[in-house]
Amino acid sequence: MPETRNNVESRLPTYEEVMAAAKRLEGVAHRTPVLRSRLIDEQLGAEVVFKCENFQRIGAFKFRGAYNALSQFSPEQRRAGVVAYSSGNHAQAIALAAQLLDVPATIVMPHDAPPAKAAATAAYGATVVRYDRYTEDREEIGRDLEERHGLTLIPPYDHYDVIAGQGTAVKELLEDVGEVDALFIPLGGGGLLSGSLLSVGALSPHCAVYGVEPEAGNDGQRSLREGRIVHIDTPQTIADGAQTQHLGELTFAILQRSGPTILTATDPELVEAMGSLVTFMKIVVEPTGALGFAAFRRMASRLQGRRVGVLISGGNVDPARLGALLAGAA
Amino acid sequence: MPETRNNVESRLPTYEEVMAAAKRLEGVAHRTPVLRSRLIDEQLGAEVVFKCENFQRIGAFKFRGAYNALSQFSPEQRRAGVVAYSSGNHAQAIALAAQLLDVPATIVMPHDAPPAKAAATAAYGATVVRYDRYTEDREEIGRDLEERHGLTLIPPYDHYDVIAGQGTAVKELLEDVGEVDALFIPLGGGGLLSGSLLSVGALSPHCAVYGVEPEAGNDGQRSLREGRIVHIDTPQTIADGAQTQHLGELTFAILQRSGPTILTATDPELVEAMGSLVTFMKIVVEPTGALGFAAFRRMASRLQGRRVGVLISGGNVDPARLGALLAGAA
Repeated sequence: MPETRNNVESRLPTYEEVMAAAKRLEGVAHRTPVLRSRLIDEQLGAEVVFKCENFQRIGAFKFRGAYNALSQFSPEQRRAGVVAYSSGNHAQAIALAAQLLDVPATIVMPHDAPPAKAAATAAYGATVVRYDRYTEDREEIGRDLEERHGLTLIPPYDHYDVIAGQGTAVKELLEDVGEVDALFIPLGGGGLLSGSLLSVGALSPHCAVYGVEPEAGNDGQRSLREGRIVHIDTPQTIADGAQTQHLGELTFAILQRSGPTILTATDPELVEAMGSLVTFMKIVVEPTGALGFAAFRRMASRLQGRRVGVLISGGNVDPARLGALLAGAA
Repeated sequence: MPETRNNVESRLPTYEEVMAAAKRLEGVAHRTPVLRSRLIDEQLGAEVVFKCENFQRIGAFKFRGAYNALSQFSPEQRRAGVVAYSSGNHAQAIALAAQLLDVPATIVMPHDAPPAKAAATAAYGATVVRYDRYTEDREEIGRDLEERHGLTLIPPYDHYDVIAGQGTAVKELLEDVGEVDALFIPLGGGGLLSGSLLSVGALSPHCAVYGVEPEAGNDGQRSLREGRIVHIDTPQTIADGAQTQHLGELTFAILQRSGPTILTATDPELVEAMGSLVTFMKIVVEPTGALGFAAFRRMASRLQGRRVGVLISGGNVDPARLGALLAGAA
């Protein structure tokens, strides 16, 4: 029997949960800096504040949700351990949170995941299990580990505690700078965006929120238009952190309720945005992390004189890949 | 008649001058962040603190010395204006300081300087004068502007107020983190290194100071060995901010007196250091800015368990060039 809307509503975190998550993260996650650039302000004609989660532990906001979830495990859950499937920032986030909380962690990764990412995850003490992404289903493998070994599966975005944890980044931003007129946030599975919406609702309710996804994978945009979770094939984009195939049940419900505007950015726009952040801010941002800034740059003429928040979601791009992306832009 | 050593000594700034410069810079220059990385500490076995002057105004420490010099101009000097010859960070530093202090600025640049640098300098309101670096002498052009038009020439490093201003970066670092066991500082003409030595002498007198220059241009190393200012041809190195041909009279005198160890770094070592800073710190550092970190990485095994300061001098590298450097390292 499909779950009714009311059932889903009752499972959605509120801003109170974001506040509770912030308490759990205090002294554990970094309160990342809010950076500005006079030259970017001049160039774009707005007062732009960047919340820099590329400086977060493991190099991305994902640590917030992962730690918030794991820190609430029961003693039994802690003993049995956690499992996650990811080849990206969620894997490292779960691995580090598990290490800090002394919980055994198993990370399920595709066999062709970059060796550097597997190594980084293993360096945090996690067990890395490889699977063949063409013949095996990672969710099935995860569920098997869950059921047979009693591990607790923490999905990358569609989870009450993960969403609440991700909401703490924008909470910090708005506490630090006050209300903003507009806020641009990367959108993959919707964990960061839906958590952010909880904080915006409480701290800057008149703010226009823009979720930004890769143009190649605009399932979020289509889902909100069509009023249902649209599934797509893995999109071909350099924004590897936003190659999700669909929103989650919980994240979709929060997005539907709050009605953010969903924008898209092309790969060349992401590279240009990354280059601008190199030139003016001297910071390294991964392609996914530049989604918000790329979309804002395109519509800056409509936000003249406004105060604009841009969430930089992460900075995990290895030097050779960063080099190839920036050199190709020349 | 050549100047005697005593005459030079009497023209050297002291730590009191660095303190006075710090007062002048308060609220004008950024107090740049001191960043750390747990993973770099683990990898290198030391407690490493990075003073990040890539986040300084104009993207490099040079703003400190330029502003300190210009802010002490007499009313006549202010009216007549300032002249500087540079195609790099000193040009932008003088241009911005002049703009802030409402002093007309003329910057003499080689005809083949990157258009982006000329544009950035002009954007601060400076007049850019081009010269042919193969047929004309920039110092002569500068002196001509000085004598005929009454402009005050501010050289890039060999100047009392410039040295004192550059010393404020390490002053801030040592105030923020306390004493360090070792300190690695980029070395071009010696303005930053000699200023830093004044601050180290006052705030961390037992610290071992390492000046680091490009291997292709080790005139500083040779000068200290030979006890005289060695002149070399413009060195071929990616560290464009350290392509100086000789130390200055004042900077050499301070170096000789304090006796820092001079190390060198190769271009490939600079690219590796830049890549490590991308991977672990998510910051953009120009090749010259990575000199200190490159040298420290090479000798980290001899500083196990120590507290090590690394001065990142600047982050002005355009995205395409950064891309080419990092991609070539793959």
